[in-house]
Amino acid sequence: MPTLGIDLGGTNARAAVVDEHGQILTSTKVSLTERSPAAVVEVIAQAVAGAMVAAPGVEVRGCGVGAAGQIHRDSGIIAVAPNLGWRNVPLAGMLTERLGRPVRVVNDLAAAAWGELNAGAGRGAHDVYVVFVGSGVGSSIIANGQLVRGGGGVAGELGHTKVVPGGRRCGCGELGCLEAYVGGHNLIALARELLVSGRSTVLAELAEGDPARLTPLTLERAAEAGDPGSREIHERAGQMLGMAIANMVTVLNPARLILGGGVLMNCPGLRRFIVEGVQALASTTSREGLLIAEAELGDDSGLIGAALLGA
Amino acid sequence: MPTLGIDLGGTNARAAVVDEHGQILTSTKVSLTERSPAAVVEVIAQAVAGAMVAAPGVEVRGCGVGAAGQIHRDSGIIAVAPNLGWRNVPLAGMLTERLGRPVRVVNDLAAAAWGELNAGAGRGAHDVYVVFVGSGVGSSIIANGQLVRGGGGVAGELGHTKVVPGGRRCGCGELGCLEAYVGGHNLIALARELLVSGRSTVLAELAEGDPARLTPLTLERAAEAGDPGSREIHERAGQMLGMAIANMVTVLNPARLILGGGVLMNCPGLRRFIVEGVQALASTTSREGLLIAEAELGDDSGLIGAALLGA
Repeated sequence: MPTLGIDLGGTNARAAVVDEHGQILTSTKVSLTERSPAAVVEVIAQAVAGAMVAAPGVEVRGCGVGAAGQIHRDSGIIAVAPNLGWRNVPLAGMLTERLGRPVRVVNDLAAAAWGELNAGAGRGAHDVYVVFVGSGVGSSIIANGQLVRGGGGVAGELGHTKVVPGGRRCGCGELGCLEAYVGGHNLIALARELLVSGRSTVLAELAEGDPARLTPLTLERAAEAGDPGSREIHERAGQMLGMAIANMVTVLNPARLILGGGVLMNCPGLRRFIVEGVQALASTTSREGLLIAEAELGDDSGLIGAALLGA
Repeated sequence: MPTLGIDLGGTNARAAVVDEHGQILTSTKVSLTERSPAAVVEVIAQAVAGAMVAAPGVEVRGCGVGAAGQIHRDSGIIAVAPNLGWRNVPLAGMLTERLGRPVRVVNDLAAAAWGELNAGAGRGAHDVYVVFVGSGVGSSIIANGQLVRGGGGVAGELGHTKVVPGGRRCGCGELGCLEAYVGGHNLIALARELLVSGRSTVLAELAEGDPARLTPLTLERAAEAGDPGSREIHERAGQMLGMAIANMVTVLNPARLILGGGVLMNCPGLRRFIVEGVQALASTTSREGLLIAEAELGDDSGLIGAALLGA
């Protein structure tokens, strides 16, 4: 029976009716104009109504929500959601009441990984490691066909593993996190420093002199055009990602490694660094039989995964 | 109902009758004089006979074996067991036939972790990370109460994560593995170089001039006595272990971290480095509620865990 999937981001909420194979039947997107929990619940209810009306006669069972933030494992309480400015919001309970159906809330990356596992690049595998590099860096582990959520429900924080003790400050407040060197926000900030300092004419050209036009791909193009400053940032990011992911492959021995997220999807050079890093640095035995694949579902992975988890 | 547990090492085989609570009722140890698979199966059968005769009237159900090596997940075939010089030995099948009962073969660290989970320092937890530092370095992940074995059955190889790309050669043949800097064999080799070079009078004194008397604890004592060369090796090992384990805590978010193995059991200074490393470097959210504990079952963890897995 189809289920409802909800993808709650920092700027909008999407709702979809998804069948048991992970096929999206209908979907609706509504912008978040206000971010109070009550207002967000209303926006989600609107999106749900839209998606359900567009699928007349379809009976829908449960509902799953993927939300960016730390979510308490059993209660569905959102402990912290930085994008929404939330702390301790009992979203599962509020939505269950508003929608009149059981709602399960999980972390957005866990939802996306579950979507890829069941309807995307992970189909048929039971031991999968999914890495997303977008503005931030996250990962999700599937072992024995189950999501690994951790004792506190926050497993997967690859972006906050330390790569340089005492190094660059990360958005989380800690020092030397992987994300501080390879996350999209940070790549852009590093490129901007370079551009503004006047040390990269290549970057300035590619961005037409406008720091606001810089993207991780601009940086990658400048690096590949031989710009020394861009190359240093890009190479360091690629090597750090390659080593961190290689080490996770060594410890987790996944059958499949799935790479996704906006930065990795847009920057083939960074993906290459990861593939080469895993080949060079993961233990030989751990990467026997390993398949490295790109995420297949794009922005829909979280929506689909949430729906499948809500079944 | 009690089960049989077997711990197959490189020099002897132990068999035990273990009750369902992980209590060892009887155990027998037999030396391996010959290492052919057929000879080892006979030695195991002798040890089993001894343990069973010592428990008259006790009915025993299944049998689990923990063996050092890479074990094929479903078939119980030992792909590689370096200590025994084995390749592709169908131990589970051979033992099932010889003992006339179902036999399950798992990696020795997985067995030890399972023992600690169910009858030792992990009791009551469902998400546990167990790190053993002895001659080598290994780990075992328990998530949602299940062993994480990986797609190829070789998950947990923390010792072969890379800490220095292109660095010191490891026993596995690869370069820059954690084990090459912190494993017991390597700590002793590094201390020996220092002693033989004449650069450490403190080490020479502690070992009474005999390189054969060096242990990881000798090195730790020399480091704590202020010997610069010993301190460098010891501190580097402690910091590398601390950071590697902190990063695993960040990604796995275990409720409990269990430290075991001969080197960690004997060297409180190295344990301290790990605890401090986790406190300083694991992400704040991942170590909320984390309990760090020492392994409780010592040499019996593998025997007990194998028996419980054989149930």
